[in-house]
Amino acid sequence: MPSTAAPVVIDLKFNADEVTAALVGAFPGRHVINRADPADAGRDLSQARYAVVWKSQPDLFDRAPNLDAVFSGGAGVDHVLTLPGLPDVPLVRFVDPTLTTRMSEWVVLQCLLHLRQHVRYEEQARRGVWAELSQPEARELTVGVMGLGVLGQDAARKLKTMGFTVIGWSRRAKTIEGIDTYDETGLDTFLARTDILVGLLPLTAETRGLFDAALFAKLSRKGPFGAPVFINAGRGGSQVEADIVASVRSGVLHGASLDVFSSEPLEADSPLWTLPNVIVTPHAAAASDVRALFRHVEKQIERHEAGLPFEHLVDRTAGY
Amino acid sequence: MPSTAAPVVIDLKFNADEVTAALVGAFPGRHVINRADPADAGRDLSQARYAVVWKSQPDLFDRAPNLDAVFSGGAGVDHVLTLPGLPDVPLVRFVDPTLTTRMSEWVVLQCLLHLRQHVRYEEQARRGVWAELSQPEARELTVGVMGLGVLGQDAARKLKTMGFTVIGWSRRAKTIEGIDTYDETGLDTFLARTDILVGLLPLTAETRGLFDAALFAKLSRKGPFGAPVFINAGRGGSQVEADIVASVRSGVLHGASLDVFSSEPLEADSPLWTLPNVIVTPHAAAASDVRALFRHVEKQIERHEAGLPFEHLVDRTAGY
Ligand SMILES: NC(=O)c1ccc[n+]([C@@H]2O[C@H](COP(=O)([O-])OP(=O)(O)OC[C@H]3O[C@@H](n4cnc5c(N)ncnc54)[C@H](OP(=O)(O)O)[C@@H]3O)[C@@H](O)[C@H]2O)c1
Ligand SMILES: NC(=O)c1ccc[n+]([C@@H]2O[C@H](COP(=O)([O-])OP(=O)(O)OC[C@H]3O[C@@H](n4cnc5c(N)ncnc54)[C@H](OP(=O)(O)O)[C@@H]3O)[C@@H](O)[C@H]2O)c1
Repeated sequence: MPSTAAPVVIDLKFNADEVTAALVGAFPGRHVINRADPADAGRDLSQARYAVVWKSQPDLFDRAPNLDAVFSGGAGVDHVLTLPGLPDVPLVRFVDPTLTTRMSEWVVLQCLLHLRQHVRYEEQARRGVWAELSQPEARELTVGVMGLGVLGQDAARKLKTMGFTVIGWSRRAKTIEGIDTYDETGLDTFLARTDILVGLLPLTAETRGLFDAALFAKLSRKGPFGAPVFINAGRGGSQVEADIVASVRSGVLHGASLDVFSSEPLEADSPLWTLPNVIVTPHAAAASDVRALFRHVEKQIERHEAGLPFEHLVDRTAGY
Repeated sequence: MPSTAAPVVIDLKFNADEVTAALVGAFPGRHVINRADPADAGRDLSQARYAVVWKSQPDLFDRAPNLDAVFSGGAGVDHVLTLPGLPDVPLVRFVDPTLTTRMSEWVVLQCLLHLRQHVRYEEQARRGVWAELSQPEARELTVGVMGLGVLGQDAARKLKTMGFTVIGWSRRAKTIEGIDTYDETGLDTFLARTDILVGLLPLTAETRGLFDAALFAKLSRKGPFGAPVFINAGRGGSQVEADIVASVRSGVLHGASLDVFSSEPLEADSPLWTLPNVIVTPHAAAASDVRALFRHVEKQIERHEAGLPFEHLVDRTAGY
């Protein structure tokens, strides 16, 4: 490729060493400006045609006014859509098997932890107590997956393979073999069947604050544990954390697993860290693999320069 | 069915209430003698044609000398083969989807717990520490399943679906799509590739004491965690517990998950309960569902009385 290929600017608040390492050999023949690299700090960005961003510096779009496209460093774009001066050019999000597989690992792990009463067994182990608990099978629990996009569909299929009864909910109706699905109008019916709720929704105006006490109260209490479990790896802005705390304490929720929080990092003194049967991970369910991200961006740029449309375009009206 | 149908004797050291409940409606038209029921204690067993046993009373076979077949209450038969006076009649073991599914739940849960560094995240959560750990993907770890029978094959397939690289080992070579398999002669090659070892072997003369320091030393140390993980849900007699403790302490093993022990219940003061990165469950990976057990026995008796061979027969020479 000629070195006159349109430049790409990288503005990622990721681990700097990982970004530097991943840039070795990436974007062959193309000029790359890495804003996290002090050597590139003052560089002219006026010729940059593509930007790869995650919590980027506030002056990015002022200094790079000639972008053809913006690439999100993650699957979610809520952080990108609120960037100051975001130009009205195609916005491409990150979709890759490395991300999807990791998310399903996390979701299946959390569902199995609750199914198999891991926290109770751990508590017994600390006291050296040998006591078998009455153990339902996976099929006796219905996992309701909210969000049937790239991540939700993969997780739903893997949960099904593990034996769970799986149902799903999304804005527009979906057909997935072996899984009953609901659209927006079927929300209450969906919730009434759900013993383990898995949130894999983007953060949008419609999903903000969705997971609250009123929603938890609509979940099934007919499952083997007598109360539902709430699992969220979408975005923390979709959940009301005070309601989660209160619902776990009152028994409205049997337990929870949370990877995302309304404010991150979660404060060290949040009660969520140590609430019984609540598992907290630090937004680590599916970290972006930086090499895979750059391969994906390269591929999309190639498509674009060959006159093909971008894949994984964000619908700004829908907000994801 | 005529009430003259050949009687069946039940001698199961299971939860007595569960057995009583499961017997309601079971074996229609057939006389059932439940030895755990005081009302049946002195009953004549000389006419009994079938026995369903798990750690049965020592006088069973003396008092029931006219058995056509013996049914094991579990998938394993090591406990049955050592029963005093076991007659030389067909021995049928318990195989059922309720058992297989449960075991795979447990195995996949344990592999994911180690992959996703759950114990380290829990430890951070106790201190309110938000810190993402470097996270390999499932495919970067090779799970080596020892024992590719009913349970091993199902677990291997589900681990593969979750993204792990999976290899397997059994006495006689197997062909399983997407999984490299080894037979007895390939043991060392198999171990050298294995980052997470999953034991799903029966206890036999050949497998007793198999999982010892010498074997752990042959496992891969090239995986992302630098040392292998040992998981066992076959039988405790196949493992040398002092070697597990020493290997975890010395770092030869990165961690372990154990459901079975050389002596059960595991003593309250065993170091295994609280060893770092070691997860202990009380032989609860795949409890026999008593209703499913009786359905399976009914079906096998029906086959037998219709002149068909029993399924799931034990090979007494091989010991499983
Ligand atoms: N925790 C982590 O490490 C991590 C990592 C990656 C991603 N994430 C989060 O996961 C989210 C999902 O990722 P994805 O790749 O699966 O996204 P996606 O392919 O865009 O799927 C989003 C799904 O949510 C549904 N949805 C959106 N708004 C809705 C509404 N108002 N009502 C009902 N359903 C609605 C969509 O419905 P339609 O199918 O009808 O469009 C779609 O099924 C991301 O947006 C991101 O926030 C978290
Ligand atoms: N923890 C629990 O809750 C629980 C519950 C149920 C069962 N179990 C245990 O799990 C065991 C396996 O059950 P299963 O139904 O899968 O049994 P299975 O169908 O009989 O399979 C046994 C497997 O082990 C292999 N094997 C046996 N001896 C071997 C040897 N010396 N070297 C190499 N491979 C050998 C067999 O090889 P071939 O294929 O060549 O015959 C076969 O693949 C049971 O015996 C029981 O002890 C534990």
